[in-house]
Amino acid sequence: MHRFFLTQKQFHNNYVEFPSNVSHQLTNVLRLQTGDLVLVLDNSNFEYTVRLGDVYQMPITGDILERKLSKNEPKVELHLFFSLTSREKFEWILQKCTEVGVSSYFPFISKRSLVQQLYVDAKKFSRWESIIKEAAEQSRRGKLPEINHPSSFQELIAMLKDNYDICFLAWEDAESQSMTLKDISVDSSLPGIKKVALIIGPEGGFAQDEINFALENNVTLLSLGRLILRMETAAIVGSAIIMHTFSS
Amino acid sequence: MHRFFLTQKQFHNNYVEFPSNVSHQLTNVLRLQTGDLVLVLDNSNFEYTVRLGDVYQMPITGDILERKLSKNEPKVELHLFFSLTSREKFEWILQKCTEVGVSSYFPFISKRSLVQQLYVDAKKFSRWESIIKEAAEQSRRGKLPEINHPSSFQELIAMLKDNYDICFLAWEDAESQSMTLKDISVDSSLPGIKKVALIIGPEGGFAQDEINFALENNVTLLSLGRLILRMETAAIVGSAIIMHTFSS
Repeated sequence: MHRFFLTQKQFHNNYVEFPSNVSHQLTNVLRLQTGDLVLVLDNSNFEYTVRLGDVYQMPITGDILERKLSKNEPKVELHLFFSLTSREKFEWILQKCTEVGVSSYFPFISKRSLVQQLYVDAKKFSRWESIIKEAAEQSRRGKLPEINHPSSFQELIAMLKDNYDICFLAWEDAESQSMTLKDISVDSSLPGIKKVALIIGPEGGFAQDEINFALENNVTLLSLGRLILRMETAAIVGSAIIMHTFSS
Repeated sequence: MHRFFLTQKQFHNNYVEFPSNVSHQLTNVLRLQTGDLVLVLDNSNFEYTVRLGDVYQMPITGDILERKLSKNEPKVELHLFFSLTSREKFEWILQKCTEVGVSSYFPFISKRSLVQQLYVDAKKFSRWESIIKEAAEQSRRGKLPEINHPSSFQELIAMLKDNYDICFLAWEDAESQSMTLKDISVDSSLPGIKKVALIIGPEGGFAQDEINFALENNVTLLSLGRLILRMETAAIVGSAIIMHTFSS
């Protein structure tokens, strides 16, 4: 069944009203008919089975037949902090990591980031949100991951400690200093971990003073193995292995 | 240090001879100078530290200073069987899964594969090999993953049983029937597993008779979680989690 995230104001007592872009998709792209069923999501982890009303009358509405809790959201929240990079890689990370189950995105700029411009215009930001929404619908998420405006690395690191149960930074040069997730998953404190942060640096890596600053702020260096992963590969592989390790 | 896979015939007693495309890369792209050091690989898991000879004399040669075993190859062999698909996704799977550590690729055609043409011309095949080689050099592999010409799904499944310690097929509709890698990793037979096969179906999934045929041939259905992954995401996430589970 096709899935659509709607906003709160599109939910009424026992029906929903589809916005014009979704109405267009329902009729012109998916060619659904009056009476067809779709799944609608309210972004609070509930799913609604909805029967489409007259598809020739805009805006299309649909009657809510059933409301139930989505079973698909991961039990652990994974928050991904990653360097700004080229458009293609950045968008690819948003798409793939949404499929894997990431809860929120915090793009940042560090010394060696390819992109050094913090400001993101509304058009680009809304494109990021669309990519996330489409990937969330396709992969059957119960909630939309949030995306934040870019910050500086320093600013983000400083706020980590109080907000997450554990913070990892993937660091390739640090096999001797860094833990693997296998070391961590035999640790007895594992079941208490509900909010995880993962930090992925830019193509050129972090500078030593950035690593030191992260270590001073309780960040754990994480090895993703002996092979050197590209930045975007590290983001998806790191996210996938963390979800696998911490989700029951 | 830059890394280059050379073929056996480019290795001489105490020096190597770079082919013309690598010579071009050394001088015109990387702008290396006479006397600079590079790492050369013989695709049998050995690495050679090589000092470049005169970079203005073609073909460029280099003196072998040291030969040592590469430490980077994963301890478990992962063989990836995956449906033919669009060019972009296919090439992306080759690149990313090479970084993750896959040992060989077996493309196939099943009922719902997007591409139904088994024949691959020499130019396309050689492009696949180049993508793998570049990703292997960049991620510091000790061996080049092999790529096979496409086969039919039936043909490949029939040969699985005798060649791998365990064969997984990622199947999204089968959460109740299928195992997760967490179920498997508590299994005591784990340390004996050295050769793993992972099968990733096309965008439209496998037909039920294809699943039945796989089950008759000792294939284990594998769940990659509740979220629905795109085909290319399943290939990289499945490979990463298997490498994580089976590599020590």
